Amino acid sequence: MIQVFGDSLSGNCYKIQLLLNHLAIDHKWRPVDILNGDTHTAQFLELNANGKIPVVVLEDGRLLAESNAILNYFADGTDYLPNDRYQRAKVLEWQFFEQYSHEPYIAVARFLARYLGMPESRQEEFQSKQAGGYKALEVMEQQLSASPYLAGPTLSIADISLFAYTHVAHEGGFSLERFPAIRRWINTIESHPQHVPMQITEHTIS
Amino acid sequence: MIQVFGDSLSGNCYKIQLLLNHLAIDHKWRPVDILNGDTHTAQFLELNANGKIPVVVLEDGRLLAESNAILNYFADGTDYLPNDRYQRAKVLEWQFFEQYSHEPYIAVARFLARYLGMPESRQEEFQSKQAGGYKALEVMEQQLSASPYLAGPTLSIADISLFAYTHVAHEGGFSLERFPAIRRWINTIESHPQHVPMQITEHTIS
Repeated sequence: MIQVFGDSLSGNCYKIQLLLNHLAIDHKWRPVDILNGDTHTAQFLELNANGKIPVVVLEDGRLLAESNAILNYFADGTDYLPNDRYQRAKVLEWQFFEQYSHEPYIAVARFLARYLGMPESRQEEFQSKQAGGYKALEVMEQQLSASPYLAGPTLSIADISLFAYTHVAHEGGFSLERFPAIRRWINTIESHPQHVPMQITEHTIS
Repeated sequence: MIQVFGDSLSGNCYKIQLLLNHLAIDHKWRPVDILNGDTHTAQFLELNANGKIPVVVLEDGRLLAESNAILNYFADGTDYLPNDRYQRAKVLEWQFFEQYSHEPYIAVARFLARYLGMPESRQEEFQSKQAGGYKALEVMEQQLSASPYLAGPTLSIADISLFAYTHVAHEGGFSLERFPAIRRWINTIESHPQHVPMQITEHTIS
């Protein structure tokens, strides 16, 4: 069975869980505790030399890291990733936006607040993330005011990528009050019949 | 003709120029000066609401941003991007690694030193980039010690992505002395018959 090494609080890991649930792909969740140093053990570095989660081990033992690369692997050939090469590239455009212009602000602010309990020593770093995070939300709002989903008229892995940390942006100190299109989009995704919330459900934990 | 909006010193823009030269795709280079604020004008934000280069305007007027998404668009169907979905995902794995674990250290250190002339006020930030940059180089060295190219036996857009800032890492204060596999790989890429160096050649400037 496909194994997903991940942390239940990590949006990057949640992306995989969410897509696999949409696609009804059976998998075994292998919990990794990043605060406990689990990603720095020699054993884990065999899975990913970069020491990051999520990592997927396919049924034949082949490895895949980087959340958005993993989403592309599983979505290939499904409705979650278009066949047209321009549309595929637009999905990637949003996913690279997510990793460079969204995650380093919104996910990192949330990490400081939610994982680390907002230590006094990192207040300045937390504050420094606010402007970049709001800028990313503005870019999303502009797109979602003009389009039902980020990369077009239907749900794609671009939405799954951005949903992961956007729907918990408040945990990083970001208010979505002035982003009605983002709030509408979050509600739409959350009401999908194959949706699973971020909390890891017991049956997926090994 | 395809238009590429970019800055001649930017590795993210150079990636596009390098691939288009490999593929012999005619294009018009549209210079953008980021230090002059060119990416923040209303006109530029029409091209990319995120205010970043490179941006490609296709012949039919459609837009594409994010360097690695652009590479995937042009490489699709060529030898630079495999057809097999696992191999494609491995190429993406390296490209997401580049944007999250390599570029924010090596390219940003280089930006501070090369673009901004290493202002005293940003020395601490410059120093803070060194550990992450060397970690990224170690991950690359490990892979390139075992494989001719990053994503397998042949040159792919994973290599083009990582080459862009790695071959000028010294401009960000990084020595490649203890990375012989990376140096071998750089030499191989630079000796390819379709290689173009980073400096913008006059005929591509509009």
